Order: sequence, then structure tokens, then C-alpha cells
Amino acid sequence: MSLIYLLDLCAVAICAITSTLEARHRDLDLFGVLVIAVISGIGGGTLRDILLGRLPVYWIHDPVYVVVGLLAGTLTFFLGRKLALPKNFFLIPDAIGLALFTVIGTSIALKLGAPWLIAALMGVITGVFGGVLRDILCNQLPLIFRTDIYATASLAGALLFIALDAYALNQAAAMLCAMSTIVVIRLAAIHWHLQLPRLK
Amino acid sequence: MSLIYLLDLCAVAICAITSTLEARHRDLDLFGVLVIAVISGIGGGTLRDILLGRLPVYWIHDPVYVVVGLLAGTLTFFLGRKLALPKNFFLIPDAIGLALFTVIGTSIALKLGAPWLIAALMGVITGVFGGVLRDILCNQLPLIFRTDIYATASLAGALLFIALDAYALNQAAAMLCAMSTIVVIRLAAIHWHLQLPRLK
Amino acid sequence: MSLIYLLDLCAVAICAITSTLEARHRDLDLFGVLVIAVISGIGGGTLRDILLGRLPVYWIHDPVYVVVGLLAGTLTFFLGRKLALPKNFFLIPDAIGLALFTVIGTSIALKLGAPWLIAALMGVITGVFGGVLRDILCNQLPLIFRTDIYATASLAGALLFIALDAYALNQAAAMLCAMSTIVVIRLAAIHWHLQLPRLK
Repeated sequence: MSLIYLLDLCAVAICAITSTLEARHRDLDLFGVLVIAVISGIGGGTLRDILLGRLPVYWIHDPVYVVVGLLAGTLTFFLGRKLALPKNFFLIPDAIGLALFTVIGTSIALKLGAPWLIAALMGVITGVFGGVLRDILCNQLPLIFRTDIYATASLAGALLFIALDAYALNQAAAMLCAMSTIVVIRLAAIHWHLQLPRLK
Repeated sequence: MSLIYLLDLCAVAICAITSTLEARHRDLDLFGVLVIAVISGIGGGTLRDILLGRLPVYWIHDPVYVVVGLLAGTLTFFLGRKLALPKNFFLIPDAIGLALFTVIGTSIALKLGAPWLIAALMGVITGVFGGVLRDILCNQLPLIFRTDIYATASLAGALLFIALDAYALNQAAAMLCAMSTIVVIRLAAIHWHLQLPRLK
Repeated sequence: MSLIYLLDLCAVAICAITSTLEARHRDLDLFGVLVIAVISGIGGGTLRDILLGRLPVYWIHDPVYVVVGLLAGTLTFFLGRKLALPKNFFLIPDAIGLALFTVIGTSIALKLGAPWLIAALMGVITGVFGGVLRDILCNQLPLIFRTDIYATASLAGALLFIALDAYALNQAAAMLCAMSTIVVIRLAAIHWHLQLPRLK
């Protein structure tokens, strides 16, 4: 459980970093950037906890999550001006973060007795809602509604995790399989520009 | 109660269908359309449950709501390209959905002991907030803030329901009266382009 | 406590008035304006209550908050057309409202046992989130992310309140000191156009 906690914090940091890098193209001051960095990192788990009634939400009594988001955002804010990172430097960490958030969210919902469809949904919400909130606050059409397969990868992983956890493996193995699947689908989608069908 | 449950599901389906039809003018993929379809259908009741502290929210342990939203959205997504429905095909179902959501939301809040003004507000939130969320996610100024009388019809019906329920009728009759009022006001507003006063 | 309650209601009224004055430049009808007025006034405290699990949220069983927001919004809507108020008429009341919301929010979170960083965050959320919601509903990039020091003043006051409350003063004195600090920082920031650093 301690490893998952550490990975969870890493996923929060990755979200905060990528959001800060994206926010630099917008007319935001340091405070605005930090708010958006923290919200990207903890927004998904927060909505999951509210919907499931796990209140107070998880970061109220564990401020480490907020601290990690603030630190990652502040460092990126000041270093990001000088550093010229390669464009796709964060694609793999970002995919791992999505995978981790998805599996954690699904597993929490299952433990609370949610039906499988709802548990998978909670996994997807945990994985993608931070980014949706970031885009809404930045006054943009949320990226995940129009981009390469992203939430779809999260959904596939959540469903796989539920199936493996129920019928076959111990939880740790089910988590690893599901997370690998999410990362692979996500990277394949980026590489071959896989898209879901769209209207027009 | 079983009839109300069925009607409730119908209202979710109607919301999902109209949202999918509207989303087709936007640059969304299938996943984005389905998310918006489901959120339109269950968003109002979800906010109501959170504000009232009825957690987990109502669809966590009854996935039928989400399933109905997904099915209605998917069918509309694929059939909607071929079908050329008359422009106002959904006006009456939509008005009935608004009426139903309003009365259900008001009645739930009353049962929890909320004061009448707050109960009416919860009815309006249940009725219109799904559409507000849809518009925010689509990065639009919410329609109900600028269109023909919509939330106003919902509010009038909620207040009528509270009065009838308190002073006169049995609940089923009060529900029917209130719902008819909402549908009539809504259709009258559309037909005669009734508008609330506005600044400038 | 009764004085704080009265001041709290005043802060709700100020939020509703300033939001109505801002909304007049948008294509909103009376209903839209009132919704935005009420949400600006009670949105911050509502999010705080949800995150902390204080449900139902505070205005469910005390409709006075909603009534005050509605009255202030309606009066401003109809008088606002005739009255030509000086442009910065509301700057001082607005700063007092921010100060009051911040201190109340922080104090509630402390009482529930939240760590100091989280308590300060709850103060800031209570102080600024109503305005963020207003801007999102109006489809604008939230003002506080790009304007003169606003949330920063709230944060400084929240932290000062926590320190004074813990180490030195009785709560009433700590509240007054913290609130004065917020008002002074806010007015100084407006007067000298103080800004946080920004990217680019």
C-alpha cells in the first residue's frame, strides 16, 4: 500500500507539472497556475470521493497531496521558463499517471460495494476529471472530448481490472495488468493517431 | 413509485438524446458525446443529492440510470446521422422531462425536511442543472440563462407542487397538477416567445 | 456569533450586487442574473462544506442566505439601470466580504480538525470560489487567475488567522487582525497595481 501511495503522489506531481507547462500559454499569474496545477492533480479523486460519499475528501486530512501539487507547480513555473523540454517528454509519465489514478479509483469504488459499471466509471473519473476541470477553468473545450483515445484507454483498463480482480488474479497482479494495458493503449493511440468515430 | 421510476428513466433518456443531437455540431468524438449525454441526464439529480447530503448519489447503487443514458446516447449517435428529425420533435418530451425532474427533486428535498424555498430550488436544480453542465462542458454560456422561460417554468411548478402538497391534495394529484403547469408554461413560452426582462 | 452571522449575510449581499452589476454586460435575462448573483454569494461556502463533508450544505436549513442573495440581485437588477454608481463604489465592501468569508471558512475547517494548510485553503475557497463559479457560468477565464492580488490576500489573511489563533490571541482578536490584513493587502494591491509574477 505504501508503494501505491508513493506512485499516487507521483501521479499528482506529473499532473501538476504538465498543467503548469500548458498554462504558460495563457494569461495567468503564479497563483492561477498553482490553483490549476493542484486541481489537475487532485480534482479527479475529489469528485470520486464526493459522489461516493467518502467525506471529507481524501486530501483534507492528508495535506501531502496539496503540498506535492504546489511544489511541483512552483518548480515548473520558475524552471519552465528556462528549460526547453522535448515536446513529448511527459507522454509516458502522463500515461502512467492515468493508469494509476484509474486503477486506484476503480478499486476504491469496488471496496465500497459499487456495481462494476459504476466502479469502472469512478476509475475513469479519477483518471480524467482533473484534466477536465483544468480545461474548464482555462475556458477551453475539454481536451479529452476531442483528442486521441484517452478516457477510452482508462475505461478499458478499469474494466480489465474488475474482471481480473473478480475471476482470476490477486489484486496486485490485476492492478499491474490493467495499468500496463492503459499505458499500452494510450501510447499506441498517440503513435498511430487512433481516434474514436465522430459526428461529421 | 414504480411509474415514477420508469418516467424518471425516460427523462434521462430524453436528456441524453437531445444532448447528443446538440453535440453533433461540435468537434466531439463518441466518448465525449456519451459523457455529455449521461451528464445531461443525471447531472441535476447528482448536484441535488450532494447539496442535500444524500450520499452516495442516487445512481451509484442503481447503474440503470447510467446504462439508459449510454444506450440512448449511443443509438442517437449512430442513427442521428441518418435520421432527419423535425426540428421541434423533442420539445414536448423535453418539457415533460423538465416537469418530472422538477417534481421529483422538490419532493425529495421536502421529505428531508428542507424549507419550502430550498425545496423549490432543489426541484429547479434537478430539472435544469444537467443542461447547465452540458453547456459548461461544451464551453458555451448556459442556454437557460438567456433563453425563453425554462427554469422559470420549473420554479413555478415546484412552488405549485409545494403549495398543493401542503394544503390540499394527495401527493400524486399535486405532482400531476404541477407537472402539467410546467409543460403548459414551457410550451406557451416557446410558442409565443415569452421572455423574462433583461438588462439592456 | 450573531454579529458574524449578520456580516456573513452582508458579504452574500455584496457578492450578489457586484455580480449583478457585472452580469449586465452579458446577454442574460432576470433569471440568469439571479442565479449568478446567488451562486456568487454562496458558492464558496457550498464547496467548502461539500469538501469537508458538512452536509447538507449550510444554506439548506437556513434559507435566509438564498433570500438575501435573491433580494440583493433583484434590487440591483432593476435599480442598476438607473443608478450610475461610481466605478469603485464596491471595492471596499468587496474587500471586507472577501476578508469575512476567508476567516469564517478557515475557522470552520480548523474546528473540524483540518491541518493548517488545508484550513487556510478552505478559507481561500470560501472567499474566492463564488467568483470563480460566476466567471465559469459566464463563460469567462476566472478573473482571480489573472488579476491584481486577490486570492493571495485571502491566503495571507487565512495563514495569519491560524497563527494568531494558535499561539496568541483569543479568536475574536485573531479574526479582526486577519480581516484587516486582507482588506489592507487587497486595497494596496488595487492602488499600486501589485501583481504576482507571471509566465511571459
